[in-house]
Amino acid sequence: MRTLLTTTGKVDDTDDAAISRCFTSAHTDGFWLDIEQPDADDFKLLEASFKFHPLTIEDIQHQNQRPKIDEYPDYNFAVIFQADWVQDEPVFREHHLFVGPTYLVSVHSDPAPALAVLKERIAKSPDLTKGQPSFLTYLVVDAIVDATFPVLERVDDTVDQLEDDIIDKAAPGALDRIYHLKHSVIDLRRSLGAQRDVFQKLVTHGIHLQQQDMTLYYRDVYDHIVRQYETVDSLRDLLTSAMDVYLSTVSNRLNQTTKALTVIASLFLPLSFLTGFYGMNFAYLTTVLEPPYIAFAIGVGTMLIAIGIQLYLFRRRGWI
Amino acid sequence: MRTLLTTTGKVDDTDDAAISRCFTSAHTDGFWLDIEQPDADDFKLLEASFKFHPLTIEDIQHQNQRPKIDEYPDYNFAVIFQADWVQDEPVFREHHLFVGPTYLVSVHSDPAPALAVLKERIAKSPDLTKGQPSFLTYLVVDAIVDATFPVLERVDDTVDQLEDDIIDKAAPGALDRIYHLKHSVIDLRRSLGAQRDVFQKLVTHGIHLQQQDMTLYYRDVYDHIVRQYETVDSLRDLLTSAMDVYLSTVSNRLNQTTKALTVIASLFLPLSFLTGFYGMNFAYLTTVLEPPYIAFAIGVGTMLIAIGIQLYLFRRRGWI
Amino acid sequence: MRTLLTTTGKVDDTDDAAISRCFTSAHTDGFWLDIEQPDADDFKLLEASFKFHPLTIEDIQHQNQRPKIDEYPDYNFAVIFQADWVQDEPVFREHHLFVGPTYLVSVHSDPAPALAVLKERIAKSPDLTKGQPSFLTYLVVDAIVDATFPVLERVDDTVDQLEDDIIDKAAPGALDRIYHLKHSVIDLRRSLGAQRDVFQKLVTHGIHLQQQDMTLYYRDVYDHIVRQYETVDSLRDLLTSAMDVYLSTVSNRLNQTTKALTVIASLFLPLSFLTGFYGMNFAYLTTVLEPPYIAFAIGVGTMLIAIGIQLYLFRRRGWI
Amino acid sequence: MRTLLTTTGKVDDTDDAAISRCFTSAHTDGFWLDIEQPDADDFKLLEASFKFHPLTIEDIQHQNQRPKIDEYPDYNFAVIFQADWVQDEPVFREHHLFVGPTYLVSVHSDPAPALAVLKERIAKSPDLTKGQPSFLTYLVVDAIVDATFPVLERVDDTVDQLEDDIIDKAAPGALDRIYHLKHSVIDLRRSLGAQRDVFQKLVTHGIHLQQQDMTLYYRDVYDHIVRQYETVDSLRDLLTSAMDVYLSTVSNRLNQTTKALTVIASLFLPLSFLTGFYGMNFAYLTTVLEPPYIAFAIGVGTMLIAIGIQLYLFRRRGWI
Amino acid sequence: MRTLLTTTGKVDDTDDAAISRCFTSAHTDGFWLDIEQPDADDFKLLEASFKFHPLTIEDIQHQNQRPKIDEYPDYNFAVIFQADWVQDEPVFREHHLFVGPTYLVSVHSDPAPALAVLKERIAKSPDLTKGQPSFLTYLVVDAIVDATFPVLERVDDTVDQLEDDIIDKAAPGALDRIYHLKHSVIDLRRSLGAQRDVFQKLVTHGIHLQQQDMTLYYRDVYDHIVRQYETVDSLRDLLTSAMDVYLSTVSNRLNQTTKALTVIASLFLPLSFLTGFYGMNFAYLTTVLEPPYIAFAIGVGTMLIAIGIQLYLFRRRGWI
Repeated sequence: MRTLLTTTGKVDDTDDAAISRCFTSAHTDGFWLDIEQPDADDFKLLEASFKFHPLTIEDIQHQNQRPKIDEYPDYNFAVIFQADWVQDEPVFREHHLFVGPTYLVSVHSDPAPALAVLKERIAKSPDLTKGQPSFLTYLVVDAIVDATFPVLERVDDTVDQLEDDIIDKAAPGALDRIYHLKHSVIDLRRSLGAQRDVFQKLVTHGIHLQQQDMTLYYRDVYDHIVRQYETVDSLRDLLTSAMDVYLSTVSNRLNQTTKALTVIASLFLPLSFLTGFYGMNFAYLTTVLEPPYIAFAIGVGTMLIAIGIQLYLFRRRGWI
Repeated sequence: MRTLLTTTGKVDDTDDAAISRCFTSAHTDGFWLDIEQPDADDFKLLEASFKFHPLTIEDIQHQNQRPKIDEYPDYNFAVIFQADWVQDEPVFREHHLFVGPTYLVSVHSDPAPALAVLKERIAKSPDLTKGQPSFLTYLVVDAIVDATFPVLERVDDTVDQLEDDIIDKAAPGALDRIYHLKHSVIDLRRSLGAQRDVFQKLVTHGIHLQQQDMTLYYRDVYDHIVRQYETVDSLRDLLTSAMDVYLSTVSNRLNQTTKALTVIASLFLPLSFLTGFYGMNFAYLTTVLEPPYIAFAIGVGTMLIAIGIQLYLFRRRGWI
Repeated sequence: MRTLLTTTGKVDDTDDAAISRCFTSAHTDGFWLDIEQPDADDFKLLEASFKFHPLTIEDIQHQNQRPKIDEYPDYNFAVIFQADWVQDEPVFREHHLFVGPTYLVSVHSDPAPALAVLKERIAKSPDLTKGQPSFLTYLVVDAIVDATFPVLERVDDTVDQLEDDIIDKAAPGALDRIYHLKHSVIDLRRSLGAQRDVFQKLVTHGIHLQQQDMTLYYRDVYDHIVRQYETVDSLRDLLTSAMDVYLSTVSNRLNQTTKALTVIASLFLPLSFLTGFYGMNFAYLTTVLEPPYIAFAIGVGTMLIAIGIQLYLFRRRGWI
Repeated sequence: MRTLLTTTGKVDDTDDAAISRCFTSAHTDGFWLDIEQPDADDFKLLEASFKFHPLTIEDIQHQNQRPKIDEYPDYNFAVIFQADWVQDEPVFREHHLFVGPTYLVSVHSDPAPALAVLKERIAKSPDLTKGQPSFLTYLVVDAIVDATFPVLERVDDTVDQLEDDIIDKAAPGALDRIYHLKHSVIDLRRSLGAQRDVFQKLVTHGIHLQQQDMTLYYRDVYDHIVRQYETVDSLRDLLTSAMDVYLSTVSNRLNQTTKALTVIASLFLPLSFLTGFYGMNFAYLTTVLEPPYIAFAIGVGTMLIAIGIQLYLFRRRGWI
Repeated sequence: MRTLLTTTGKVDDTDDAAISRCFTSAHTDGFWLDIEQPDADDFKLLEASFKFHPLTIEDIQHQNQRPKIDEYPDYNFAVIFQADWVQDEPVFREHHLFVGPTYLVSVHSDPAPALAVLKERIAKSPDLTKGQPSFLTYLVVDAIVDATFPVLERVDDTVDQLEDDIIDKAAPGALDRIYHLKHSVIDLRRSLGAQRDVFQKLVTHGIHLQQQDMTLYYRDVYDHIVRQYETVDSLRDLLTSAMDVYLSTVSNRLNQTTKALTVIASLFLPLSFLTGFYGMNFAYLTTVLEPPYIAFAIGVGTMLIAIGIQLYLFRRRGWI
């Protein structure tokens, strides 16, 4: 599905002929061609009209690239990642960008709400692009990068919620969730790390995506990515700690359980011994136990004393 | 809320007209404009009179920036962090500084006691600024950076106190507090790391914030930040160790509890067996037990021997 | 076992004379000589006809090299690693490449299915090589590097499967398997790290393997290796976490076992005490217990009350 | 307390006038002024006679600096750390050095035995200084740096001793000591790391402390500091492992305790059941048990068999 | 003990006069002087005839140097480490090399079998040295470096063997051995890391030990050291994992022990209760139990049912 937007905010036709016309001298505006779920026709168009290198055409047919910027004589090819939140875990969306002197071609397999919003904004207020393709490119890149922030916030919230679950309850389910979240965070970190390296090269080595120097603006984008990377790095650190906390909490509860067992056993084992003692078949014992009231009182008395001693010891140890 | 201070220590008017006057040739002093909780008027002033770039105006309207220095043709824009201690945990305050050839504009959302103290000091002894805007800027930056030290000392104290709690008591609450403190320290480390990178660039790449070379002085500020970063890095290391210590302590106490249980069970299970033994309904046993005194003495004797053996074994194992 | 393929896709003789002929001016095609399980004759050929340095001849006679590229005046010598999956664990295959101006010599001890497939592809469509030795070299290197991907996917699958085993069952066998897999992953990481360094040098320092500049293509290969390295690095991280999860799960199950023990002991120890109590030989007790029905009802009643209290306490603690 | 030593090994007066005389042309020797526990007079002397920068004067009035070398037009200012061993833990001593063209001023708050020894050695054999201020400076720096070695050896010994304590006994006190030692080692590592960076700059960037090139000698000092740093780094690694060993040892002992409990319970619970069984009030049982000798023999026999089975099972499990 | 070998493989006299003769113009061969356990005479020779710098003479009198190469005007001084295996643990041997334009002097305190073997090989086939001192030096360095490989293999074997011990048995002795092995591996890593840095400088910064460029050959040595370092680094990683595995295994066995205890207690506590129940002195109970056969059958029946329920529950939990 193609959409075409000029730097003057005009939505244009997207058939092959119309796009070819954009290259003619009559057409002075820069333009942005956005292709969602590209098919064979689209690949042919990119190869025939735009004359893109076969390696880059091959790249956009595969997902699971790494973020990168490859410089070609007539254009630059960039792969940029954007995190999305699907079914309680973060996933990645890839954006493939061809940045030519007067145009931008963006290709993505999944719907991109962030770009849809941007298109509407430009259509409403064409001034946003300042009429320059380089500024249009910046707006697109900025929209893709910033779409990752809400995802990181959701991960952050999930971690916060897990923390409360662990320290209070140490449920086995929490362990499972920490582990899967850590899996996701490790993936996020890997991709954002690669993305950070790409933009650092862009900012410090002075690669100009288009003729105009936009370093000032990409420095801002780079700052955002570094913040994203550092956030993810901290989250990974926190999840590792959370696992340690989980283990400590489980050990703590085991201690509680064992304490309960010890209290019960310590209370009743001596009592059972006493009842056993007074239950022995010794003739002597039976004789001694004769005076009924007092003997019984002695028996119960020793038991109460035993209980008393135990309770005193437990309290001194702080167990009850 | 605006306050304006010249390099000669004079407190001046802060309405728009007065500030515009500062730029005229008649006004030869440098000045420092401090804006607390900036509102729309302030943003307009910065954009109209100072002609700051829209990107920087946008930056100061948002919190959660990273520490940075961006160079612009007519001025430098810096974001500097300062730690504060609120409700038993460290938080961050952002300071946004515009450093122009003859002026400094500082913007912050929260009250900044460190800057208030500095203003008083300069008002009292104007010599502090040496009459130069670059020295005034250094004083402000130094005041912001040094305000983090007392916070780190409080974190350090809290860690020391937690250590004692863990090794002595291993209370579950301690785990919770270690974890939250580690969370804070991870955040502190992230921000101070970014701040350190910024000042390193300032010192080694020879970025001059204003005309005069103040590298000598900023090297000192840089040293302070590195010390802060290394302190936080060590604290993080210590908190990780503290978590390990907690786990070991809990395991240790579990061992104590289990030992107590084992002692009790080992003492009374054999005794219960003996009382049970003498309580069996065997006719033979009843006959044998006949001579009352001696039989009873044998019964009690075996029990005492059992207790003796147990106590001897426990002592040899070092359990009692 | 030798096979020889020219850049025009022709399969040629591989006796010493035929190979010598390839160097004559009459022979204008580049060629690829592939040697599997090299023997003494092959080493002699490489030393005599190709005039390779004794150090490199010595290198290819030993396995367990590190990935590397050594530059020699007349050729470059490369050692490239490829992961393979043998008997449920990853192993390494070494490929030794001699890259001369017009030829490529590849030497490997084990059969290389990836190269066999490539030979067939080139034989079928000779255009693949573009008639250039440098492109042929790229195809071989690319085939070797990409053969590692399916292995990493199998490792990834094994880790995923282990994760499920751990969190559900915590079987001791799982620990053994995690440990051995981590052993393998540490080895993989070491070799891929060295391989990554080699290709980085190739791409950034502009080492040309042959006259033509193929940086554009090797950048692609480098990207693949970096992705492989990052995957392995993440796997290592995950396996460390998996070990922590295993420990937590075991602790958790220990807690469950101890809980079961505590419940049983807490239920029956008080009951045993009560039966012991009513079994004592006190004359008073025997008298009191006289009215048969009611006495028995009281005895059973106290036991039921004891059970009730225990069940209530267990439920409140969430144990049953 | 001031002491003054010339490069010819002469001990000189230290009043202000005498020091001023050292700067006159008549005085051709270099000199070393050592100030212990500097007071206000000393600071005034350094500012007035030596014309040191206010920033450095301020620095030497505070402890807790970082190791550093600051270059000033007329002199270099260095902060060097030396470890000392006080009350069973390592502490830091700071040395502040001013290195001018013909002189060295060293300032320290605590007594410095290493420097005292050096002074004696120079007084005895003045040749040591080779009559050059730069060599004198090297001797002082070398003495300060090498004074850290014996401290590291004591830390090493303490770690070795702790290791034995842990693996044999796992006493809770050991955990406490490991933790505190790790605390100290983390501090040592931080300071030695900073010191290493300072000397690396000195050796590789060719900073000359005085006119003469002493790189050859400072390379030696740098090697010593790197060795100190690597030693501390290894110690930190070992202490982390020691903590893991402690946890494992505690778990191991818990296992032993639980095993003892299991053995006792497994032996006596079945026996208690048997005595209870033969103690039941069933009329049938009482009848069957009638033939006294044989019945009793059967009863005791079943108990012996139960004990035998238990002992066999325990031995097979390796518990006794 | 001195031995002297010329580049033509001739073994020469080693008295001071003979060595002096080697420097005369008449003597055109390069030579290698090997000094084992140097004494005062040797130090005097090195200082007088070779004119080595006092700092290097001092260096070779001390062990515990770091690997390094120091450049001096007339020669280079190198400290190279070689691992050896003594009493079941790796130790270090230091080799001190003086590399002059036409000679090599090697000094070592311990016997060096690797050098003895090399001497024999050169004596047998003098071609090995190619008649050049630089090649002779390479052979010596190569022999020293490669002597570390068999030691690493023994460490590797020991780790493999420990792994099996841990996962199967978790004996406390294993923990002790892991810890000591880790101690050794940390030391190995530290020294090999320093050695790697030295050879990297040699290879990349183009330090020529002697006039001829031997970079091609030292690149090979460097590759070997990097492989050694990476091996040790992996071993350290594995030993850390082994410690975690040990802890998990101990926890697992604790779980087994506790399970056994729970099974025993769960089986016999209810049975004891039942025997106690039927042993109570209630008149009613004694009456009800009157019909002897049936009453006894009921009693035994309830016990069998109790056993049956327990066994069913244990099996469902997978405990038996």
